[in-house]
Amino acid sequence: MSIQPLTGIRVVDLTRILSGPFCTMMLGDMGADVVKVEDPPGGDPIRHIGAGHNELSWYFASFNRNKRSICLDLRSTQGLEALKKLLGTADVLVENFRPGVLEKLGLSRGQIAQINPRLIVASINGFGSTGPYAGRPAFDFVVQAMSGFMSVTGERDGAPLRTGLPITDLIAGLYAAFGVVNALRARDLTGQGQRVEASMMNGILSMLAYLASDFLATGAVPAKQGNDHPITAPYGLFMTADGPIAVAPSTDAILRRFLDELGLAALLESDDFKTNTQRVANRKALDGHICAKLAGDTQDNWVRRLNARGVPCGLVQDIGEALRDPQVLHQEMVISVDHPGRGPVEMLGFPVKFSDTPCRIRHPAPDLGAHAAEVFEDWGIPYSLAELEAASCPGG
Amino acid sequence: MSIQPLTGIRVVDLTRILSGPFCTMMLGDMGADVVKVEDPPGGDPIRHIGAGHNELSWYFASFNRNKRSICLDLRSTQGLEALKKLLGTADVLVENFRPGVLEKLGLSRGQIAQINPRLIVASINGFGSTGPYAGRPAFDFVVQAMSGFMSVTGERDGAPLRTGLPITDLIAGLYAAFGVVNALRARDLTGQGQRVEASMMNGILSMLAYLASDFLATGAVPAKQGNDHPITAPYGLFMTADGPIAVAPSTDAILRRFLDELGLAALLESDDFKTNTQRVANRKALDGHICAKLAGDTQDNWVRRLNARGVPCGLVQDIGEALRDPQVLHQEMVISVDHPGRGPVEMLGFPVKFSDTPCRIRHPAPDLGAHAAEVFEDWGIPYSLAELEAASCPGG
Repeated sequence: MSIQPLTGIRVVDLTRILSGPFCTMMLGDMGADVVKVEDPPGGDPIRHIGAGHNELSWYFASFNRNKRSICLDLRSTQGLEALKKLLGTADVLVENFRPGVLEKLGLSRGQIAQINPRLIVASINGFGSTGPYAGRPAFDFVVQAMSGFMSVTGERDGAPLRTGLPITDLIAGLYAAFGVVNALRARDLTGQGQRVEASMMNGILSMLAYLASDFLATGAVPAKQGNDHPITAPYGLFMTADGPIAVAPSTDAILRRFLDELGLAALLESDDFKTNTQRVANRKALDGHICAKLAGDTQDNWVRRLNARGVPCGLVQDIGEALRDPQVLHQEMVISVDHPGRGPVEMLGFPVKFSDTPCRIRHPAPDLGAHAAEVFEDWGIPYSLAELEAASCPGG
Repeated sequence: MSIQPLTGIRVVDLTRILSGPFCTMMLGDMGADVVKVEDPPGGDPIRHIGAGHNELSWYFASFNRNKRSICLDLRSTQGLEALKKLLGTADVLVENFRPGVLEKLGLSRGQIAQINPRLIVASINGFGSTGPYAGRPAFDFVVQAMSGFMSVTGERDGAPLRTGLPITDLIAGLYAAFGVVNALRARDLTGQGQRVEASMMNGILSMLAYLASDFLATGAVPAKQGNDHPITAPYGLFMTADGPIAVAPSTDAILRRFLDELGLAALLESDDFKTNTQRVANRKALDGHICAKLAGDTQDNWVRRLNARGVPCGLVQDIGEALRDPQVLHQEMVISVDHPGRGPVEMLGFPVKFSDTPCRIRHPAPDLGAHAAEVFEDWGIPYSLAELEAASCPGG
């Protein structure tokens, strides 16, 4: 077995649905031994959500690759006892319960330190585990609204809009995974585990970038701009003979090559368009000149021609077009994973590419509770089949 | 000095603008010793972009905290020589040039292996370093367009829309930082450095979640839905007496509590609204009932009342409201950093919270080239002041 970054790291995964399973998927993709602990009788609700084939949700299959599954009823003494035995030999616990649930299970920081002082406990939640909203239920759409994300997404005079991607869940999951690997390195230095936390709100806030720094420096609140750039023109979607293209000439040199390819370089000598300030003031007129020229050729040709001149430019693709794009396929961002008895499943690939220790599929997503005996044996925990069964049954 | 996860890790940072500096900011926040290598005479273009005070861009100050700066002209023999000396003792090199630039500098994989076989080289680019678009210039807006992100953002019958956040840059930077820390762990196991890569396109694609898995399973392409949930009702923005609130009742139990708090629980007995399928079919009528009730109280009261019932609910906040939100302040997601001679700078805080080894500010963002002599001395590289000056001057 070839080495991966997290080879040998044991992860107990109490997460469900989206942000937590995304975090542990990434740890598994990096080589960690991830054991998904699921509630009897149904397990992770995502098993039963989303399109699929042969009674397998492809959403579940994608987010739970590289994991094994055991069923434990954490409301029973036996189930909780089994969990504690796993934690005794694990490196990482990941959970996305609401703040306080872990403590109610008898797994406060102090209690965990007694079980395993080297354990790293990663929590993912909506707003952080302290503060006035710590107890609030969270949901991606609500966090998109509260964080300011929606206030800069939408047409200039339209409503604030969400994105259809569950972006705040996923960013929180990614930060949690980043936190876990950092905590593993800290443990190498200190010998101690610790608590790590990421939240949907803090994660998306960290991506406000210059929208935040400009507000903090000036007090001026940025507004929605549709697809226009607030301080640069030309920029945006432009119609060609057969559909729109996205063009972002990000520097003066690129802008000159863009207009030159369109036969419009002379505009830069005109008093209406000489400086960026003038171009922003006369954006409509400038866009009119550009669209008149773009109408003379097709999307595909303009994308080819403009990129050849070093002008960032591309099609507006739907999800299907994006996932069948030749570059995306070349980068193996759609992979096919065999699921014995359920057939091959297509899913997203690995976004981090390593030259020597690449991410790979070691297991397909597990059937519910398929690995109980195997995990306890692998992890060297003496446990009889009868004990396991008692821990796994609903109600113990 | 208290330990942090990346204490003792030396990072040579050749990045500029956005995605790369975000990556190295996170490595610095985790305790790494990040040396920003900048081009004379102006350095990172972001020094001169964005609002600020006392001739300091707050955008630059935020993205370059916890870094030191040295100026090297990499077009000169002396500058390149100095860079190679740094790489000889560094753990990580991060760059966000276009693919191929590093090789042109004489830093191909083979050449780097000769300088320092333990060096991790992290690259951030637009579409990945191989494949038909490897050479294309990239820009956040264009990647939002090509990735499918814009195709699921916007009003049902409106244009595809970007978000104002430079989301594809930031996600690429975060994945690169995650990749670097994983590569450091891999190096602990193998003794070898390696190449790590993240791209704007692959990063945002990895966040398509169920939009991807549902397309891959069925071939049906998801469409823009405005703020409606494609398969759940009620869901979205609803007007109250004094403004809209975002409400996302994500399960049947939460929906029942939502309607109960509005005095509308009886609707769930009606044949129009009994099942989710019926509610989606009669979404407009249902939303009408809800808005009629919500008109009877204020935003703030509804947010309080509904959260108290466990219904995910919040205000649509602009960037200013979000950054002054009491929960956001409690979580220290806005911090003030003293910049000697430039005054205090407010900036975004740390999204990953560690109980024992917290992220912190060790240095404010550096003045251009301020640390050349200090870095060479700290890193144990014998180098005269005259040599340093020759390496730092434009044109050597």
